[in-house]
Amino acid sequence: MNKEALVQVAEEVRRATGLPVGWRDVERTLGALRATRDLWEAVRLSRVPLRFLVPIWEGLARRGLLRVEEGLDLLAEVPAPRPGEAACPACEGRGLVGERLPGRAAERFLAWAKERPEAIQDFDQGYVTPESTLARVALAWNWGDLEGKEVLVLGDDDLTGLAAALTGLPKRVVVLDADPRIVRFLERAAKAEGLPLEAHVHDLREPLPEAWVHAFHTFFTDPVEGPLGLQAFVGRGLLALEGEGCAGYVGLTHVEASLAKWADFQRFLLENGAVITELRDGFHVYENWGYIEQMRAWPWLPVKRRPEKPWYTSALIRLELLRRADLENARVEGDLQDEEATY
Amino acid sequence: MNKEALVQVAEEVRRATGLPVGWRDVERTLGALRATRDLWEAVRLSRVPLRFLVPIWEGLARRGLLRVEEGLDLLAEVPAPRPGEAACPACEGRGLVGERLPGRAAERFLAWAKERPEAIQDFDQGYVTPESTLARVALAWNWGDLEGKEVLVLGDDDLTGLAAALTGLPKRVVVLDADPRIVRFLERAAKAEGLPLEAHVHDLREPLPEAWVHAFHTFFTDPVEGPLGLQAFVGRGLLALEGEGCAGYVGLTHVEASLAKWADFQRFLLENGAVITELRDGFHVYENWGYIEQMRAWPWLPVKRRPEKPWYTSALIRLELLRRADLENARVEGDLQDEEATY
Repeated sequence: MNKEALVQVAEEVRRATGLPVGWRDVERTLGALRATRDLWEAVRLSRVPLRFLVPIWEGLARRGLLRVEEGLDLLAEVPAPRPGEAACPACEGRGLVGERLPGRAAERFLAWAKERPEAIQDFDQGYVTPESTLARVALAWNWGDLEGKEVLVLGDDDLTGLAAALTGLPKRVVVLDADPRIVRFLERAAKAEGLPLEAHVHDLREPLPEAWVHAFHTFFTDPVEGPLGLQAFVGRGLLALEGEGCAGYVGLTHVEASLAKWADFQRFLLENGAVITELRDGFHVYENWGYIEQMRAWPWLPVKRRPEKPWYTSALIRLELLRRADLENARVEGDLQDEEATY
Repeated sequence: MNKEALVQVAEEVRRATGLPVGWRDVERTLGALRATRDLWEAVRLSRVPLRFLVPIWEGLARRGLLRVEEGLDLLAEVPAPRPGEAACPACEGRGLVGERLPGRAAERFLAWAKERPEAIQDFDQGYVTPESTLARVALAWNWGDLEGKEVLVLGDDDLTGLAAALTGLPKRVVVLDADPRIVRFLERAAKAEGLPLEAHVHDLREPLPEAWVHAFHTFFTDPVEGPLGLQAFVGRGLLALEGEGCAGYVGLTHVEASLAKWADFQRFLLENGAVITELRDGFHVYENWGYIEQMRAWPWLPVKRRPEKPWYTSALIRLELLRRADLENARVEGDLQDEEATY
């Protein structure tokens, strides 16, 4: 069973019911059935409407893939990600922890993170705590966006590509970053650990090379937060996704972006066929960086003291495409940082 | 200092800088300063862009409300909600727990929840666990949407209005529900506990009485999830909000709503001036209800067994208005449940 088969089941259900069922609904249905044979637990884990699920199960049963008796039993190996289990035990799963990621990913990632290159101002760097990176990857695991998927990371001073690859789940992870130090570090880790992880020096203001257009299932990015930055980072991310049912993870702050900018960004996503499926404020905590006195904002600050505790946080947004996004792949002209400061 | 003063500071900063600063940015800035005198901690807690904060602090200092020396010291009582502290300690605050709510609200709420009326099908009821209700109220506390606020709950089989009132933070809580049993139960609890909580029997298909239009700062609702249901529940909620800077909390499921419907709902929010500031999937867990075999979907199910564990979950969305929402206040015609089933 391959993606074509998922598309066929979805089309069949769509024709029979008139409901907007997509291949990813079928994939999620199958992924949930890898985790449970209980009907109600399958409903909960699949995140697919009940009126889609019933005809999807019927379609799978007709194909001999599912036996429906006391429970729902899969009869074949299926290429669908099993939903992750990263829910925080202390808050009924409303939060996330990276500890349960497969492949001892958390432990191995924390060891690598100790050797990482420092943040430098040239590339507007500043990275999140290793726990934040792991939690981000854990959310993607929960949503079935890693297992068997081709993953793209656009700008990776958080080392998200490394954490994702260490889970052993993705088919391939590609990282693009403007900083050769990051690229070399990731290449070293990938080699030492034997990971399907490649890293390339690439400036996101440049068009995305054709080989990466509509080539991925999942992307991660922390954009520079002006309209141009969002175009360069998130626009490229959307363009890199194969199409319907593919997902993106985007960081967004309050420090650099007003709620008016958040609204414009949400409109941009919807206009390009993406629906927001998570928006968790305060999800990422940043490590304090060394060049804070050189920050644009430093001269304006009424109290000139270096921060003693983490203070810079950002939200994590998950989006999913309802259709292929066909954005322009042009060069982005202008100073991304300057333009970030407009609202 | 009152809301007029907040509006004045915002206008002054807007005129001087051209940035889209709103009164709620000023309120958040002040609320954060009630919790800390440390500049960086104030940035983190206020959730306001740094380039808004600096001129807001200056405006407050010019008015003699703020002393800026080693730290940022408030010099007056201010009418701004202190940000809540409900972050889950086990997952770096990515989740939420209700235990830390003020006024021993969690303990008192759990006692009341034991006596609550059972869910009945007449009103399409089904309620979340008491822990889910408390976590929802905790998120509102974190965002400063309770303290000193007028709160409206549209449909309240989850008893959100009771939990909110028990924190002692809101100025007033008004609950509208079609079920007289819920209304009587809330009235009894309000009287016994001496809470500023009132409950009214009201069918949300009817127009919102004029006294409740543009009269509240915060609303909560769990809509029936068709276009008509969203209009009746969320549309009324938006209409009940005073305007810019006011917030709404909405539950949304996968069981009843496809991602295509989620996208339509997000477009509806943005078109009416609301920005999404949180969307936490799987936030609410429902208690299993007694009438499951009478559910519309029961006859279609391939395995007819009652669920043994909780299986029905929903996301929590927080929206915030960037401008007053002027929706039509007409009667909603049609069967909300029937129409929910369309996609």
